Amino acid sequence: MKNNGENKGWIRRVSPGLKPPSLSDNTADVDRLLKGIKKSLGAAEDVCIDFSQAGKAPSALRQWNYQVSAFVYLEHDRWHLIDIADALDRQGMYGLALDLGSSTLVLRLIDLEAGSVMDETAFHNPQIDVGADILTRIHYAAREGGLSRLQAMVIERLNDEIGALARKHGIRPESIVGMSVAGNTTMTHLFLGLNPYWLCREPYIPVMNRTGLIPCHELGLAINPQAPVLVSPNVGSYFGGDLIAGILASGMSRQSDVSFLVDVGTNAEVVIGNREWLMACAGAAGPALEGGVADMGMMAGPGVIDRVVIDPVTREFKIRAIGNHAHDGARGKGPVGICGSGLIDLVAQLFSAGMIDLRGKFVKSACEGRLVEVDGIRHLIVVPPENSGTGRALTLSQTDIDGLIRSKAAMYTILTTVANTVNIALKEIGRFYVAGTFGSYIDPRSAIIIGMIPDLPLETYVSLGNTSLEGAGMALMGAEARQSLFEIRDQITYLELNVNQEFMNLFSAAKFIPHTDRSLFPSVTVRA
Amino acid sequence: MKNNGENKGWIRRVSPGLKPPSLSDNTADVDRLLKGIKKSLGAAEDVCIDFSQAGKAPSALRQWNYQVSAFVYLEHDRWHLIDIADALDRQGMYGLALDLGSSTLVLRLIDLEAGSVMDETAFHNPQIDVGADILTRIHYAAREGGLSRLQAMVIERLNDEIGALARKHGIRPESIVGMSVAGNTTMTHLFLGLNPYWLCREPYIPVMNRTGLIPCHELGLAINPQAPVLVSPNVGSYFGGDLIAGILASGMSRQSDVSFLVDVGTNAEVVIGNREWLMACAGAAGPALEGGVADMGMMAGPGVIDRVVIDPVTREFKIRAIGNHAHDGARGKGPVGICGSGLIDLVAQLFSAGMIDLRGKFVKSACEGRLVEVDGIRHLIVVPPENSGTGRALTLSQTDIDGLIRSKAAMYTILTTVANTVNIALKEIGRFYVAGTFGSYIDPRSAIIIGMIPDLPLETYVSLGNTSLEGAGMALMGAEARQSLFEIRDQITYLELNVNQEFMNLFSAAKFIPHTDRSLFPSVTVRA
Repeated sequence: MKNNGENKGWIRRVSPGLKPPSLSDNTADVDRLLKGIKKSLGAAEDVCIDFSQAGKAPSALRQWNYQVSAFVYLEHDRWHLIDIADALDRQGMYGLALDLGSSTLVLRLIDLEAGSVMDETAFHNPQIDVGADILTRIHYAAREGGLSRLQAMVIERLNDEIGALARKHGIRPESIVGMSVAGNTTMTHLFLGLNPYWLCREPYIPVMNRTGLIPCHELGLAINPQAPVLVSPNVGSYFGGDLIAGILASGMSRQSDVSFLVDVGTNAEVVIGNREWLMACAGAAGPALEGGVADMGMMAGPGVIDRVVIDPVTREFKIRAIGNHAHDGARGKGPVGICGSGLIDLVAQLFSAGMIDLRGKFVKSACEGRLVEVDGIRHLIVVPPENSGTGRALTLSQTDIDGLIRSKAAMYTILTTVANTVNIALKEIGRFYVAGTFGSYIDPRSAIIIGMIPDLPLETYVSLGNTSLEGAGMALMGAEARQSLFEIRDQITYLELNVNQEFMNLFSAAKFIPHTDRSLFPSVTVRA
Repeated sequence: MKNNGENKGWIRRVSPGLKPPSLSDNTADVDRLLKGIKKSLGAAEDVCIDFSQAGKAPSALRQWNYQVSAFVYLEHDRWHLIDIADALDRQGMYGLALDLGSSTLVLRLIDLEAGSVMDETAFHNPQIDVGADILTRIHYAAREGGLSRLQAMVIERLNDEIGALARKHGIRPESIVGMSVAGNTTMTHLFLGLNPYWLCREPYIPVMNRTGLIPCHELGLAINPQAPVLVSPNVGSYFGGDLIAGILASGMSRQSDVSFLVDVGTNAEVVIGNREWLMACAGAAGPALEGGVADMGMMAGPGVIDRVVIDPVTREFKIRAIGNHAHDGARGKGPVGICGSGLIDLVAQLFSAGMIDLRGKFVKSACEGRLVEVDGIRHLIVVPPENSGTGRALTLSQTDIDGLIRSKAAMYTILTTVANTVNIALKEIGRFYVAGTFGSYIDPRSAIIIGMIPDLPLETYVSLGNTSLEGAGMALMGAEARQSLFEIRDQITYLELNVNQEFMNLFSAAKFIPHTDRSLFPSVTVRA
């Protein structure tokens, strides 16, 4: 992430070493400062100051006898003054990168001069108090004062977290001189105080696709008031700045090979392309992939099952839960539920062990002793009550499996549709980048077994983690990366997913494990 | 003043005729608007919007079904959105030019599309309540809350006057989308709320020499909140934006001939140059020229003498007072005082009639019957009590004449010094522009007779009136004129007037009427 010659910082500190004014050089204080900065930068671009900042320059310059450091940022071929400080002050120059998720915010503190990450903190989006889903928040924003309340919730929480980070590292908030934010289009609108009303109404129009740099005082952020806030641009309601930042982080837009970038979730966001073209698409895969629908499903956390292995011969379950919870049956220490990646593992293993068939139906003979029927629906006991952390059995119902199969089929169909649109066979994909925290937990082999992702060599799959945060940080640190963010946006062709007969045919064919067309998944052994 | 092809307006209105968004074109509202404006302008430059304005665009666009007019201004190679309005609205596009004088403010309402002046209003600078002179105001600004009080005085008064002008012409204040201001450096600082503390302290440093365009809401002006305020730049404490605007208005910086531009007043501001170079200088000429020191001196106004003719044979006084006051002796209708131009006339006429000598001393024999002595000082009765509007005699004392001679000598010496510095003989001056309202009242012939200005053919002298206001208006209306304002500023070499022995020698030689060196004033007949 370190800056190199080609990707110099667009936020900089210089020490112009000004000469104090005299009768023979009566240039005004502000003009003297801007001229000195320009010379110090060796810049062709002029240096300017926001008028509201000019008034305080004379006393500051005199206080430090004109020996100042200046923090500046580049926009529209001009350097803009953020602030000046005593040239003798040894405090560094810091920035923040923010992944603005609808459920979780992740904030990075960055040393802008070293080009390195100093710290990172994650916390729930406080807007969850208004509603966990995005639509509820959009409706809330339409209420009297709702929009500014939603904005304030995020900003206030951010200020608390920023304050804590700054204290922890002995940094003055005014030494934080830049911020970069990436989020989906709705979250970004709420963060900026822009009305999201039209985002969820046909034809789904954002207020803005791209903003200029915003002085952070306009958003109420408690860092240097003139610190520029870089907001990752969107392509529309359904393809936000988090994904654009993700493309930047993946590097796919700089490669000649064609790659996929997929953010797996309730909404599956898919990008295919290379340095010459990019096509993006977003479609509902359903919440089943994230484990949100299954009886025992929950978000990843302590005691939650994230990995399952079933011995194909003994059909013994080996279960791993997050946070060293041993599967030893001690009450309160056993598993409490299953997360999405665990669910994908579980279903893949059930299939491999012959306990479910091609259609995902329980094979009674193979599930001997584990099947119970509740309200006429079959349930498989994954963890018996005596081993569970809840005191109740953790079960997987036929309905849960059906839901997961619909979701995985939707995901596979979206991938196929996008690839078909650009006439690329799935086998031609050089890299398959998986973005997002959830995606990083998924075992690609399990996902291939259930037919959620193409049957490519495992090394094709690269889990990138939080690409939104990574991309935001890159764009904060480098001028080229920042420019790329907007070039990527402009380069994207957005494919409106047309759920027509062809899509439905593909979807139906994908609703089997791994697929009706077994030739698509040669590596997956299907038990007779 | 009308714009032509070479000097196009930098504030414009366009009607982009936007297509409403659809599923096949889901560009965001703001991006759609900016793109449409750019296309409509046929501009190479991008169009941008202040973030604080973006949020209101969607409802405005929808309210008018995307049929809007947009007001934009050009700065730093980008067009900036001021506001949008219903495309069907027939209101025009207006601007304001302001001459920000320390005693008088003059405000012009301009039709920016027609390029014509619609109205003009003049009023006292309300800061006079704090102090008539600039130094008092600078000291007041240093008090707790003093600076913002001084700024508010001017802004509030301006808002009243702007409101009155707008009502008079049926203009909505938000249709006033630009303003241009020219004033001396201190007045400009106070208008902008910038601390003038260092202006009057060696080495006399302004806060800023030049500002970018300032959105008028930052100054509290009650026109369109995003209307740009153009502020004429300064060269230093003593050479302000009023004079830079004056140079622009005079046209001297576009001519090949060398011209003088002189603003006569307590402070004499002098510029010499042509399209290749400009040298400026300001020096204290003393208040005597404006009639401020003489016993009977006062500012021009009703009943004030502005013209005097003395019959060289009969020595009868013909006196003209402002506002049809006949010199008929009727009490209350007679003259009440004399203004600067009247004083210059009076002294020139006294000299031509042989009533004062080369040194400005009363010639007793020639003043027969008009001389009285008060406290040992001779006074000449100009208007006897029975003819005066005050009931008391209007008199001119020897002290008054001595003061005027010092002032005129200072003025002539400054002119000579500046011309000497650039090696130009006064006779080579092609045009001698006289700026300012006061200057426009001065009879050049009288000023030559007393030796205040060089003995050039009368047609060399051109009175320009309020060049500060005229220049401000030009810069508001034309992009080239606006650019010239800053080019003129950069082109000026400021001559710090060094009151050394040479200056004092020149000054001493000029303290005669018209001058010790009579060859400099061949047209002036000196009575033996």
